[in-house]
Amino acid sequence: MSTAAALTVYGMSSSGNCHKVRLLLEQLGSRYQWKEVDSAGGDTRTAEFLALNPNGKVPVVQRNDGRVLAESNAILFWLAEGTPFLPTDGWQRAQALSWMFFEQYSHEPYIAVARFISGWTPDDSPRRADLPRLRARGHEALAVMAHHLADHRWFTGGDYGIADIALFAYTAVAEDGGISLSSYPAVERWLEDVRRQPGFVAMPVPDAEVQARFAASR
Amino acid sequence: MSTAAALTVYGMSSSGNCHKVRLLLEQLGSRYQWKEVDSAGGDTRTAEFLALNPNGKVPVVQRNDGRVLAESNAILFWLAEGTPFLPTDGWQRAQALSWMFFEQYSHEPYIAVARFISGWTPDDSPRRADLPRLRARGHEALAVMAHHLADHRWFTGGDYGIADIALFAYTAVAEDGGISLSSYPAVERWLEDVRRQPGFVAMPVPDAEVQARFAASR
Repeated sequence: MSTAAALTVYGMSSSGNCHKVRLLLEQLGSRYQWKEVDSAGGDTRTAEFLALNPNGKVPVVQRNDGRVLAESNAILFWLAEGTPFLPTDGWQRAQALSWMFFEQYSHEPYIAVARFISGWTPDDSPRRADLPRLRARGHEALAVMAHHLADHRWFTGGDYGIADIALFAYTAVAEDGGISLSSYPAVERWLEDVRRQPGFVAMPVPDAEVQARFAASR
Repeated sequence: MSTAAALTVYGMSSSGNCHKVRLLLEQLGSRYQWKEVDSAGGDTRTAEFLALNPNGKVPVVQRNDGRVLAESNAILFWLAEGTPFLPTDGWQRAQALSWMFFEQYSHEPYIAVARFISGWTPDDSPRRADLPRLRARGHEALAVMAHHLADHRWFTGGDYGIADIALFAYTAVAEDGGISLSSYPAVERWLEDVRRQPGFVAMPVPDAEVQARFAASR
């Protein structure tokens, strides 16, 4: 007799924000059901999806009793409570949150958006005119990360945790958006350290058409 | 004999992100020292400030022992631990964080930035061309808030708390950026409820020159 998974994740596999949730669930060894939502194709703007998350974004998690939680980093925080992925000390927890807010405000809007425009918009999209500015701001975020990683192994305290997962997601694929990591050896060292953690799973590689667009926009 | 305040806040008084921290500290009755930083005038790009926060943003709080914490909503979370402003239940805490990540990703970049451009850039700034887009996205965020407030008094659980403080800061001054609240009676009701909370302090009114620019850009 099989037991239903306790948690349903609505996510798009090629989205770093969604991959954060998958990575932590895999590393926790949790059972979950993944429902693929094609955000780029409009599936987050349907009435059915908006009833789940009125803000029209993935990822969203839903519990068996129907309750939902949106926002990737809030989901990470909830899942990590009481596990080694989130410190118990209040100051350290706040430092983890500080990096996660940095990720959503100063990192993702540049590094993730440069990747999205590079891979998922047509060659003649007017949004491509934003790429130089997005890449420059992405490099500013990487410099802040490199400054921290120059004398810290992880982003919070002595252990790998949810701040690392949040920052890993789009940093690992920054080059898809034409943002080279070659000037940040400390960041490259940290990415390798994340990849060596037990239970690590990589984000799926997008299809050939998207990969060809990444290559052409670099 | 006076005791030194336990906490120093580096902030710009006209910034909603900074005002969040002041509002919670006032409502907690905490002692703190406020150091005014003119972010719009470049004070967050000095070597001295970057040593405090390499990301060059206010607010930042510093403890007596020198340790620092950046990111307004991470500061709120840290200050609110163990107080009535943050629920103890893990799911409710995650809901508070969900709204706070919504605020930084889907609200502040439109509503706060429209206000900044309206009030602090010259009349002929090329950034003013962004205002229609920023205002449209700001209205999308307000619609998400109004949807929630249609059947909830506060943003998390049964009580006023840090999600309300985070969302109040720039919603209360959305009209400065030309984003009218008149279509959102539930939002206006909630703003009034926040203003009636014990210890509430309003954000200081900007100087006459800034106010004249707000009026001219509407």
